[in-house]
Amino acid sequence: MKEEATGAPRRDRVSPFKVAIVGFGTVGRSVARILCEHTPVELRLTHVYNRDVERKRVSWVPPHVEWTGSIEDVLSSNVDVMVELIGGLKPAENWIRRALLSGKSVVTANKQLISQRGPELLELARRQGERIGFEASVAGGIPVVSGLQAGLAGDQLFRVAGILNGTCNYILTRMEASRWPFVAAVKEAQDLGFAEANPAEDVDGYDARAKLAILARVGLQCQIHPSDIVCRSISVIEAIDFTYALRLGCTIRQVSRAEKDVHGEAQLFACVQPALVPLSSPLARVQGSQNLVMTTGKFGGETVFSGHGAGGDPTAVAVVSDLIGIARSRRELDRLGRSKSKNAIYRIPRGKSHRVIGEFASSHYVRFTVRDRPGIIASLATIFSNYGINIDAVFQEPGSDKSRLPFVITLEECSNSVLESALGEIKNFDFHVQPPVSLPILV
Amino acid sequence: MKEEATGAPRRDRVSPFKVAIVGFGTVGRSVARILCEHTPVELRLTHVYNRDVERKRVSWVPPHVEWTGSIEDVLSSNVDVMVELIGGLKPAENWIRRALLSGKSVVTANKQLISQRGPELLELARRQGERIGFEASVAGGIPVVSGLQAGLAGDQLFRVAGILNGTCNYILTRMEASRWPFVAAVKEAQDLGFAEANPAEDVDGYDARAKLAILARVGLQCQIHPSDIVCRSISVIEAIDFTYALRLGCTIRQVSRAEKDVHGEAQLFACVQPALVPLSSPLARVQGSQNLVMTTGKFGGETVFSGHGAGGDPTAVAVVSDLIGIARSRRELDRLGRSKSKNAIYRIPRGKSHRVIGEFASSHYVRFTVRDRPGIIASLATIFSNYGINIDAVFQEPGSDKSRLPFVITLEECSNSVLESALGEIKNFDFHVQPPVSLPILV
Repeated sequence: MKEEATGAPRRDRVSPFKVAIVGFGTVGRSVARILCEHTPVELRLTHVYNRDVERKRVSWVPPHVEWTGSIEDVLSSNVDVMVELIGGLKPAENWIRRALLSGKSVVTANKQLISQRGPELLELARRQGERIGFEASVAGGIPVVSGLQAGLAGDQLFRVAGILNGTCNYILTRMEASRWPFVAAVKEAQDLGFAEANPAEDVDGYDARAKLAILARVGLQCQIHPSDIVCRSISVIEAIDFTYALRLGCTIRQVSRAEKDVHGEAQLFACVQPALVPLSSPLARVQGSQNLVMTTGKFGGETVFSGHGAGGDPTAVAVVSDLIGIARSRRELDRLGRSKSKNAIYRIPRGKSHRVIGEFASSHYVRFTVRDRPGIIASLATIFSNYGINIDAVFQEPGSDKSRLPFVITLEECSNSVLESALGEIKNFDFHVQPPVSLPILV
Repeated sequence: MKEEATGAPRRDRVSPFKVAIVGFGTVGRSVARILCEHTPVELRLTHVYNRDVERKRVSWVPPHVEWTGSIEDVLSSNVDVMVELIGGLKPAENWIRRALLSGKSVVTANKQLISQRGPELLELARRQGERIGFEASVAGGIPVVSGLQAGLAGDQLFRVAGILNGTCNYILTRMEASRWPFVAAVKEAQDLGFAEANPAEDVDGYDARAKLAILARVGLQCQIHPSDIVCRSISVIEAIDFTYALRLGCTIRQVSRAEKDVHGEAQLFACVQPALVPLSSPLARVQGSQNLVMTTGKFGGETVFSGHGAGGDPTAVAVVSDLIGIARSRRELDRLGRSKSKNAIYRIPRGKSHRVIGEFASSHYVRFTVRDRPGIIASLATIFSNYGINIDAVFQEPGSDKSRLPFVITLEECSNSVLESALGEIKNFDFHVQPPVSLPILV
C-alpha cells in the first residue's frame, strides 16, 4: 500500500526528494552509487536518462528506478531535481530551462553552460522559485563554490588564483618529475584517461577559463564572459624549462588568475597561462591531477582549498552535496507550508559587468632556442633596452648542441604587452631555431 | 522622517538585520570594522557590550550604535543576533541561552563552549526557531565548518586531521627554522602576542582538542566530549628532534586527528599530539600561525582547507559570514511571512555517542638522552624485543657531550600502548639523563 493512501497523519514523515540523473557517464554512475549505497535519507533516485539507455543499465540500482532514453520522461515526471551531466550547451541549456519551467530544481557539473549562461539560468530559477546547484562545475570535489559564497561571504575577496585543470597539471608534473617531452606526457595522460584524444580544450586553457569565469562571478562579484579571458597554451613548454625553472627556485604550472583592479572596480585582470611559480607556493605543490584554489581577501588574507578536481567520485560528492542542500532547504519550506523558494542555492550577484584585461606586470622568464654565434646576447639586450626592459640574468645549461642551443634570460618587472612588443621585434633576428617562449614569474 | 512612519508599502524594503557584539576585544573590533567599512547591506551594528565599556569606545563606529556595560541592555533589546566573543563557559553559556530564549540568534567564536555544550545549545536554538553560527570557533577564517557540513555533505567522511593551534605551529616552525630551544620559541610567541603568559592551554593541546571535538561532530557525526581526547604536550620537543626528524625526511607538528573505527562505528580514535610528519605532507608545509584541516572521505578522497587560523580579521570573517548566512535565511523566511526557522545554521547531528580511544598503531621515533656507557643499545633492544617491538634504525648526531648524549631509535609499527609499557620498563635504567621522548611517525 502506498503511503499516500493510509490516511494517517503525515506530520512526522518526510517525503523523499526525488532525483533524476540525466547523463549516465562516469559522474552519473558515481552519483547513482552514492545515492544507492549511502542513501542520504532526503534523496531518492527515481530516473536515469541516457541516450541508448539499455547499454548503460546496471544491476545495483534499485528496481523502482525508471531507465529511459527519452528526456520527456524526465521533464514530464514529478522529480524534484534534475541532475544534468551531459555537458555542453546544446541540448543541456534547453533541458535545464524546461526543467526549471516545469517546477524542478537543477544540479549541474556543466562548467561551459554555467560560465556562459549562468546569470540568465539563475535568474530563471529565481523567478520559478527553484534552485540551481553548480558546485561540481568547478574543481570537482573541492567545495570552493560554497566556500566562496558562504564560508567567506564576510570577506571582501579581490583575488582568486588556482590550478583548475587537472589534465594540464598531470602533464606538467609528469614533465617536471621525469623531464619528459610535452607530447610524451600528453600521450600518457591520454592512455590513463586524463586527457581527451584532442587535448586542446585542456592544454590551451579553455576548460580552465570557464571555471575561472565562474569563480570570478561567485567570489569577486564580477560579471565576465569566459571568452574575454586571455588563454596561453602549455604546449610551448619543454622539459628543459623545468630545469631552468628549478635554477630559479621555481616550477611551472598552468595558473588561472583573476584579480580586481584596486584602482577602479570596473576592470578585472584575468588570465589562464603557464607560469613560473616558486617551489614554496601552494601552486607549486599541486601534484598530478589535483586542483587548488587560493583566494585573497581584504580581511581573511589567503585561504586555500585543494583536493581532487576531477574524477567520477569526487565530482559526484559535489553533486550530492548540492542535492542535500536543496533537499534540506525544501524540507524546511515544506514545514512552513511553502513549496518554493525564491533564493537560488548559489548567487551570481547582479554586479556590474567588468572589462577583462590580460595586461599585467611581472618579472619574466624568456627561453630562446638559437643557432649559436657571437653577438646574440648583445642583439637581444639592445632591443630589451630600447623598450625599457631590464635584464636580470642570463642562464645556459651546459652540454647543448650549438646548432640548437637553448638559453634563458630573466627580465625585471615589466608589463606583458611591452614584452610582447619587444619579442615581436626580436623574432625578426635570423638566429632563432624556434620562437622564444616567455612565461611570467609569479611571486 | 523615519521610514516606518511613511506609510508607504514596505514590499521592496529590507529591514536591516540588527547585530550586537558582546565582547569588544581583538575579534570584536574586527567584526565591528567589517560591519562599518564593508557594510553588507543585510547587517547593521546596533550594540556593543563590554565590561567597563568606556575604555573600549572607538570613534569610527557610527553614532547610532549603543555602547553598554550591561548585558541586560543587549538581552532586552530587539537585536536579531548576538555575537558572543567573551569566551569561556561562564557567563557565556548563560547569556547565549538567554539570547536564544528572548528570540535572538547567536554567532560565537567560543570553541570551549561549543565543544562542551554545543549539542544542548543547538537543540535549544532549534526549539526556539533560532540559529547558532560557530564557524569562527574552529580554524579562524578557514571556512571548514561550512565546508564539512555543506560542501562535503555528499561524502562519507571518516577522518579529519589538521593543524588546529596556530601558537603551537608558530613555536614548532620557529624551532624548525632556527633550531631554537622550546622556551625561546615560546618566549618569542609571547612577545609577538601569539601565546598567553601561561601557554599550557595551547602547548598541552587543550585548545586543539576542543576544536577537534567540534570537527568530529560536524564532519564525522560523532558525539564526543573534548575531555575524552588524549592530549600530549609539545613541550617535550627539543631543537635536536628537528635535526633527527629531517634525517627521516620529516618535520614535527602538533597534529590533531580523529578517525572513525572502520570495523565498528561506535568508537572513534582521537588524539592531539606532536608527531613526525613527512616533509611532503600538507601538514609539514603549514608555516607560522597558519592552520590546516584535511578531511578524508569514502568518495571524495582527501580535501584540504588552509589559511589563517587565528587573528582578529580572519576570525571576524568567519563571524560575519555566519551573520550573512543567518540574515539571508531570515530574509527568505520574512518574505514567506514567517519570522522563525526551525533549522540551525549548522547541524550537530544527534548521532550516537562514540567511545573515544587514543590507541593507534604506527612507527615511532624515540629519543633517548643518556650518560653514555657500553651496553645501552643492547639493554634497550632487549626490552623492545620482549614486547615484540622491532627496531628499525638507530641514529646519533656527532659531536654531543658523552655525559648528555641524545640518540634516536626508530621502531617499526606497533601500538602506542605497547610502546608505553616498554618505555615504562626502560625508564628504570639508570643511564637516562632525562625521560625518553616518543613521537609517532605519521605516513
